[in-house]
Amino acid sequence: MSKQNAFDQKKQAILKEINSLQPDLSPKGTIDELCLPIMRLINSHIDMVTTSSCSGRLSVFAEGTKMIKGVTKVGGKGEGGRWLYVSHDYNKISNWFLEAKKENQFRVESSIDISSRLDGNNRYILYKYEPFILHVKCRDFAMASKLYNVAMSCGFRESGIGSNFLVGIRINIKLDVPIGYVDEVKGDNVLFVDPKYIELLDLLTLTKFEENVKKMQDLYNKIEEEIINEVKDILIERKLTKDEIREKKINEGLARQRKIQEERLNSLSSETEKISIK
Amino acid sequence: MSKQNAFDQKKQAILKEINSLQPDLSPKGTIDELCLPIMRLINSHIDMVTTSSCSGRLSVFAEGTKMIKGVTKVGGKGEGGRWLYVSHDYNKISNWFLEAKKENQFRVESSIDISSRLDGNNRYILYKYEPFILHVKCRDFAMASKLYNVAMSCGFRESGIGSNFLVGIRINIKLDVPIGYVDEVKGDNVLFVDPKYIELLDLLTLTKFEENVKKMQDLYNKIEEEIINEVKDILIERKLTKDEIREKKINEGLARQRKIQEERLNSLSSETEKISIK
Repeated sequence: MSKQNAFDQKKQAILKEINSLQPDLSPKGTIDELCLPIMRLINSHIDMVTTSSCSGRLSVFAEGTKMIKGVTKVGGKGEGGRWLYVSHDYNKISNWFLEAKKENQFRVESSIDISSRLDGNNRYILYKYEPFILHVKCRDFAMASKLYNVAMSCGFRESGIGSNFLVGIRINIKLDVPIGYVDEVKGDNVLFVDPKYIELLDLLTLTKFEENVKKMQDLYNKIEEEIINEVKDILIERKLTKDEIREKKINEGLARQRKIQEERLNSLSSETEKISIK
Repeated sequence: MSKQNAFDQKKQAILKEINSLQPDLSPKGTIDELCLPIMRLINSHIDMVTTSSCSGRLSVFAEGTKMIKGVTKVGGKGEGGRWLYVSHDYNKISNWFLEAKKENQFRVESSIDISSRLDGNNRYILYKYEPFILHVKCRDFAMASKLYNVAMSCGFRESGIGSNFLVGIRINIKLDVPIGYVDEVKGDNVLFVDPKYIELLDLLTLTKFEENVKKMQDLYNKIEEEIINEVKDILIERKLTKDEIREKKINEGLARQRKIQEERLNSLSSETEKISIK
């Protein structure tokens, strides 16, 4: 089977699955609505198909036990960890803790002595915000490289091309905060931060949701402008006169210069990013 | 200039810079010691050269102002943000807050009303742990792809190949926690979590340092085994008889088993003694 046919058959199968009413393989079982526009845009291109996505979410996770056969495992989420709450919905964020308390998922005590929680055997409860992530299978390296460059230019700085030209589009808009611990004796979850602090985290999560959606929109626009429309341009150009093409090239040149200047500004402000690239 | 020459010249220039006594372009100005072994290993391969690295660090960052020309900018670090503390050193983590308090970098109040901090205009103080990250320029896609696959197989799940076969090796071992705010009136930094909570974060940071170093070691071993030694094997095996190759394979199998047992022991001892590298 030729490479081209292999890609086309794979794409056909994936689109069939996306369009079917069957639940997908994610814990949630369905595609996040916020992802649909950019997925449709990408899948409209003959050389790309989306393979997995998450629009961004708040999750509250209770770690499993790290004591395995008498040995404490460093790091990781431990065995038997579970999600206490997961939501992709901006409008539900502010109420999650009230709901969780109603369902007795948390014990809130007037004062907790955190010192008693300072050893590696504790199962902590983690409050996480995770941003938009998208995986796109491309027909060849040229296509993967083009999509990668567009994603990077929109600030998706943790993007990369994997094996089989699968592009991972990632951005670093995160929260990762321990908010409590699992009481092994009473078998419940105890908050060791002020409930007001949860309100603050929720507020930050909302701003991250907004930032995330804005970034998704930027990415959508840039993919449309630099990948989808370019294909149309090539078709149109046949009909353009030499002068029209010349003017178009000049405008494209100016646009490129603008982009370079913007990127300079961005790289300036990203001085506060974690490492420098020589 | 042929592609090969371009890579070789680039590699030569980078190695010259790495080996020079001049400070590099990172905020810290020098290469993290923990990165040197894996950098040397990778740079010993004719088709790879390291371009940037960070061994993992704790940083405490005060956001800049997000109110720009009367408009609140959603997300980002704001203008004029600054680091209050940065350390790559496992042994300094437990003391950072004491030092910071001595230098009056933080005001700790008996009770803070967080409610008064629940709006987007606040400049928050963020406690971050960021793990090991490494960028490696490869000669071609085949080399980049091989390094990418090795990194993924060691759990560096956020790795990816960028443009010009630059491989980013990334892992998601993070903390990202708001711990206070900048008091614009008094012009100082106020902690809005219990100082004991900082102790807890420091403890988690130490376990993340350990997990991170273990992962770096796994990556070192796998690169050595599957990329560096493979080259040697190809050269050697030409000269080996079938029996010698068979014996070699058996010995390699035993060595692998030994390594697994050693790693079990190490992960055990790295809990009891607080050693930062095997």
